[in-house]
Amino acid sequence: MTTTIVASETREHVISFDAPFTIIGERINPTGRKKLAAEMAEGNFDTVRADAIAQTEAGAHILDVNAGITAVDPNETEPPLMRQTIEVVQEVSELPLCIDSSVPGALAAGLEVAKGRPLVNSVTGEEDRLEAILPLVKKHDVPVVAICNDETGISEDPDVRFEVARKIVERAADHGIPAHDIVVDPLVMPVGAMATAGVQVFRLVRRLREELGVNTTCGASNIGFGMPNRRVLTAHFIAMAASHGLTSAIMNPLHEEDMGAVMAANVLLGLDKDCRAWTSKFRAPAPEGGDGGRRRRRRRRG
Amino acid sequence: MTTTIVASETREHVISFDAPFTIIGERINPTGRKKLAAEMAEGNFDTVRADAIAQTEAGAHILDVNAGITAVDPNETEPPLMRQTIEVVQEVSELPLCIDSSVPGALAAGLEVAKGRPLVNSVTGEEDRLEAILPLVKKHDVPVVAICNDETGISEDPDVRFEVARKIVERAADHGIPAHDIVVDPLVMPVGAMATAGVQVFRLVRRLREELGVNTTCGASNIGFGMPNRRVLTAHFIAMAASHGLTSAIMNPLHEEDMGAVMAANVLLGLDKDCRAWTSKFRAPAPEGGDGGRRRRRRRRG
Repeated sequence: MTTTIVASETREHVISFDAPFTIIGERINPTGRKKLAAEMAEGNFDTVRADAIAQTEAGAHILDVNAGITAVDPNETEPPLMRQTIEVVQEVSELPLCIDSSVPGALAAGLEVAKGRPLVNSVTGEEDRLEAILPLVKKHDVPVVAICNDETGISEDPDVRFEVARKIVERAADHGIPAHDIVVDPLVMPVGAMATAGVQVFRLVRRLREELGVNTTCGASNIGFGMPNRRVLTAHFIAMAASHGLTSAIMNPLHEEDMGAVMAANVLLGLDKDCRAWTSKFRAPAPEGGDGGRRRRRRRRG
Repeated sequence: MTTTIVASETREHVISFDAPFTIIGERINPTGRKKLAAEMAEGNFDTVRADAIAQTEAGAHILDVNAGITAVDPNETEPPLMRQTIEVVQEVSELPLCIDSSVPGALAAGLEVAKGRPLVNSVTGEEDRLEAILPLVKKHDVPVVAICNDETGISEDPDVRFEVARKIVERAADHGIPAHDIVVDPLVMPVGAMATAGVQVFRLVRRLREELGVNTTCGASNIGFGMPNRRVLTAHFIAMAASHGLTSAIMNPLHEEDMGAVMAANVLLGLDKDCRAWTSKFRAPAPEGGDGGRRRRRRRRG
């Protein structure tokens, strides 16, 4: 069984094929949130704190922390900001963290202050990334998100992306990092720009699970980029991808549609024991009206 | 390519792996609808008419017609009632029909009056059913729904259900009925009673598609029988099953959640060309507020 253990100082969370779907809260991320970026640049972490608390209360299992404000030299500015942000988040939430940066120095800084066993997000198949991130991951004995792109970019062919994942898993093994500590991100493209974006992910997560035996994650809302009614699209994408083997997503736990999708997927994949989470959340105070409770006849009577 | 053609007098509908998901409207069915059953028994078809019109307007592709009111001898009462009901429905809707009965005489009666190329629902793997229904299907040159149970009942093992489907397809071939005119119903059990009900269906429709090359359907809402918030569960089940190969469902086109699921599945499976159906239905009059339109950064900057 593939088990990825992520932990804070006080809580442990398991990402696994046999466990309910893992929700990684995406909100603490200034990318595309100008107001939040400006606040963080000024050392104002009120929104970060509020987002951490709200996502924890909404049922996130892990909090993603990204401190990537636009800067002249992110290698200079992002590490101290990552450190600060993580310290603030750890003050208000007991959840394990996902340290999210494309700046190796920011990951290193985050790893110095994050308690427990955080998830590092991310390494890619690019040589310089592999050599910068994997030793860090090994040194701290933490799990890492592996993104399926390399020097050639993001292939539109899911089989090429699969081979990038395989390469990262093999290189990690060379560094002494086991496959169960690699969480592969198949990369979600916007379906509005590429009609095969959804099926690519479904095919890829199935192969990743069956052939590499790894846990998976993705930035789920990318799928609906630029589309109207994006939340409903994202929600269905999450549940569909879960049915093909996706075990976690970086998503918004404050979106009711997404959380409903995760809970429904848990029920429909047999991962919500006795449907307890579902029934305790949605148990109706009154009986269903009309014929909502009837079951279609599918057996013969005549 | 597997193509099942269903038609009314004026309209043709194609069920196919490469076409958008097929919606078979379930409403014209007195099972569990006491008021409707009483009306139909009295020869009052007002509700039947209203249901036919509403489902047609809501976007159903095919209308299921079931005349199975509780009776001392359904073999006596159901055939004339099926005939009448179909005639009424054909007066108000141009959609192709799905003649739904477990009484062979009612299917025969329906086939006499249904125009075009209706879908017959259903045959099972039971010997007496195979011998009663398949000659009728061959005689009228129509497609048929094949339900995966036989004399031994409904197996909890999806591989046993698969073998029942294979047997029906083979027996149909003996009668000169091609596999593309068989639409297999894998049988949906309530997930509240059997935790594996969902995964069974996903596994089964994938095998049915890959190994038998047949179209599939199911009574989707069965999955949530007895559960609260049933509509959301049904909606996610439809989209998830579609991603594993389900090409149609007998469902309620008046349920917004279910229709949203079908439309999202079409987009996410690349079956909604240029996302036209989705964008024309949901196009927002105003731009998305907040950061709803942002795309998560997944490439390195540093």
